[in-house]
Amino acid sequence: MPSPIASIVSAGISKFGVRDGIYSRELFAEAEKEAVDNSPNLDPRKDVQALFLGMMSESYEHQAHVAPLMLDWVGLLPKPAFRTEGACASSSVALRAALFSIASGIYNVVLVGGVEKMTHVSTTGVTEILAMASDFPFEQWHGISFTGIFGMMAVDHMHRYGTTEEQLAKVAVKNHEHGALNEKAHFQKRITVNDVLSSQPVAWPLKLFDCCPRSDGASCIILTSPKIAKKFTDTPVNIIGSGHAQDTLSLSERENFSMMQVTRLASHEAYSMSKVTPQQIDVAEVHDCFTIAEIMAYEDLGFCKPGEGGKLIDEGETHIGAKIPVNTSGGLKAKGHPVGATGVAQACEIFLQLTNQAGKRQVTGAEIGLTQNVGGAASTGLVHVYQRGD
Amino acid sequence: MPSPIASIVSAGISKFGVRDGIYSRELFAEAEKEAVDNSPNLDPRKDVQALFLGMMSESYEHQAHVAPLMLDWVGLLPKPAFRTEGACASSSVALRAALFSIASGIYNVVLVGGVEKMTHVSTTGVTEILAMASDFPFEQWHGISFTGIFGMMAVDHMHRYGTTEEQLAKVAVKNHEHGALNEKAHFQKRITVNDVLSSQPVAWPLKLFDCCPRSDGASCIILTSPKIAKKFTDTPVNIIGSGHAQDTLSLSERENFSMMQVTRLASHEAYSMSKVTPQQIDVAEVHDCFTIAEIMAYEDLGFCKPGEGGKLIDEGETHIGAKIPVNTSGGLKAKGHPVGATGVAQACEIFLQLTNQAGKRQVTGAEIGLTQNVGGAASTGLVHVYQRGD
Repeated sequence: MPSPIASIVSAGISKFGVRDGIYSRELFAEAEKEAVDNSPNLDPRKDVQALFLGMMSESYEHQAHVAPLMLDWVGLLPKPAFRTEGACASSSVALRAALFSIASGIYNVVLVGGVEKMTHVSTTGVTEILAMASDFPFEQWHGISFTGIFGMMAVDHMHRYGTTEEQLAKVAVKNHEHGALNEKAHFQKRITVNDVLSSQPVAWPLKLFDCCPRSDGASCIILTSPKIAKKFTDTPVNIIGSGHAQDTLSLSERENFSMMQVTRLASHEAYSMSKVTPQQIDVAEVHDCFTIAEIMAYEDLGFCKPGEGGKLIDEGETHIGAKIPVNTSGGLKAKGHPVGATGVAQACEIFLQLTNQAGKRQVTGAEIGLTQNVGGAASTGLVHVYQRGD
Repeated sequence: MPSPIASIVSAGISKFGVRDGIYSRELFAEAEKEAVDNSPNLDPRKDVQALFLGMMSESYEHQAHVAPLMLDWVGLLPKPAFRTEGACASSSVALRAALFSIASGIYNVVLVGGVEKMTHVSTTGVTEILAMASDFPFEQWHGISFTGIFGMMAVDHMHRYGTTEEQLAKVAVKNHEHGALNEKAHFQKRITVNDVLSSQPVAWPLKLFDCCPRSDGASCIILTSPKIAKKFTDTPVNIIGSGHAQDTLSLSERENFSMMQVTRLASHEAYSMSKVTPQQIDVAEVHDCFTIAEIMAYEDLGFCKPGEGGKLIDEGETHIGAKIPVNTSGGLKAKGHPVGATGVAQACEIFLQLTNQAGKRQVTGAEIGLTQNVGGAASTGLVHVYQRGD
């Protein structure tokens, strides 16, 4: 891919959380409106050429075929619209497909978004719907949920590297601290290590507060070719690296449960393309569906060596103000995880950080950012690298 | 887009029909194996860079996240894989996304496929799953199915243009005639106009034999940049036009039920790009989910004037050997409609026709072909134009 591949000129995000009495289409319109309102030089009907939308499941609202539906709800018929699904990485897949369309020169301005409406479904119902991202005959059928799958990863990591329950808990504490600074976050309340350790066990060693919530929410960015980005904003953010890899759906087919091969491969591709090293990243949004996932992300992204993720959180190096702030938005844990919205929501946070619009959670002088998003048991993995464009 | 945008160098299709006791992953592997076996110069692990896969619904097999699953089943981990969903046009959306990736120069060789496993679910269950492609609050909730939606389109077309039940029946008769020449087709049996007219009413004027069946099946093409196509085959087929448009999900928001605006817009885009006129098309695969849909496709693609679709089938002009042979494969009606597989299966048939490999159903001297695929109540529409590349 060329570098920069494309530029983000605006971003919008709905309030995440329990959004009773509305449909996903209304959530998406809320995010899209913010992105459009923040880009006064953009005339959506004239300028926007297509929509790329990530959503995981038709089952929450008994509603498939959501690309034309969302397009209609933001007044952009009859433009082309693409829905992608890659489990919890659905909208990162949309972002990568959108990058191709920009890199080809076919489109110059597109919307990229994601949405999921989950909280009207029971916890059991949501667990069953999410389980569809694992293998039916080899996993679902036997009753394992994703908490069980990530619980096994945590057990392996603890056994192999001596990672502790306290270290896992510290990831949740940090992300709640960050989420308390984000008025869009699902949870805006600080918690303690003891709150996590004493919360209800779900799949040992993971307890309730090691798990992200089910949330409603939507996200949207306006993506343009780098050449015309300055027409829409003085402060574009360039996407300078994109990586994407896949692994087996079933965890049982893997040799090592303590790492995410897709994150290693995708970050290697994104770093190579952008000629950025892990040490140069100023701010990162990573996929903390469970606390252990963030620990593994530190290692697989090269923020520390394999096995030293626990030490990195112990030393406080991933807090705002420290060496490499991670999940300044609150992450999936505190901001919330409306599955389809998550990948693009990560890009929204990096856009805010690199344009100095992140308010109370601003990382001073951030110039280079990264997002890491996985689907299922890290069967899908995407990493993007961003650079301030002004 | 450049012209040609990309080249098809091989195609594979599973047997369509009732495929008991197997999973969708096995169907897709069957189609992929045929495509690979037909391309002896291709080394999939070395040459193929990504998979673009269309599938409509997670509900048939309680299985989402199918892109890495299918990729694993054909031995291509850890390459990137994209799943797209656009209802019955899911794999045409995958094809268009794949075209972007080739046009950008990022990929040179990709697999594009589609799959759906439906027949293990009851007719009622399938009807409910398909209904998810219509609007939940405005349509599904009130109990309307797609047969009802296309039945209303047929009533409007009959009222507006005098189209008759016999003309609708003749579409089914022709497509069964063509399907009888296709050993991969779900139905390989000729039927009569009287068989159709006397079959069980489903949603008047549509009777059972006006409706495509529910089928299991998969399809796969190998798509390359035009520059390197000859490395893999002496007879590539170039994609020279691509069009894509959207409409409201709900039919109630439309002013005219007798036409498919998405087909008009998408074909206009594809014709303009390829500089081909409707009169130059030698063979076409169109979306005959119900017989009325094929009549409307004739008109919206410009094969005849609006309102003259009934006359075109009366005059036999869309049979093999006549002016513009349509659905030589048997179409959705006789070949079958495993939803996610359909778009790419249409491309497979055009590949066979333009490379003179269509056997008993070969259209003599076919050089230019077209596919038209719609999703839902024609809320998604894609048209592609193909040209023999040798």
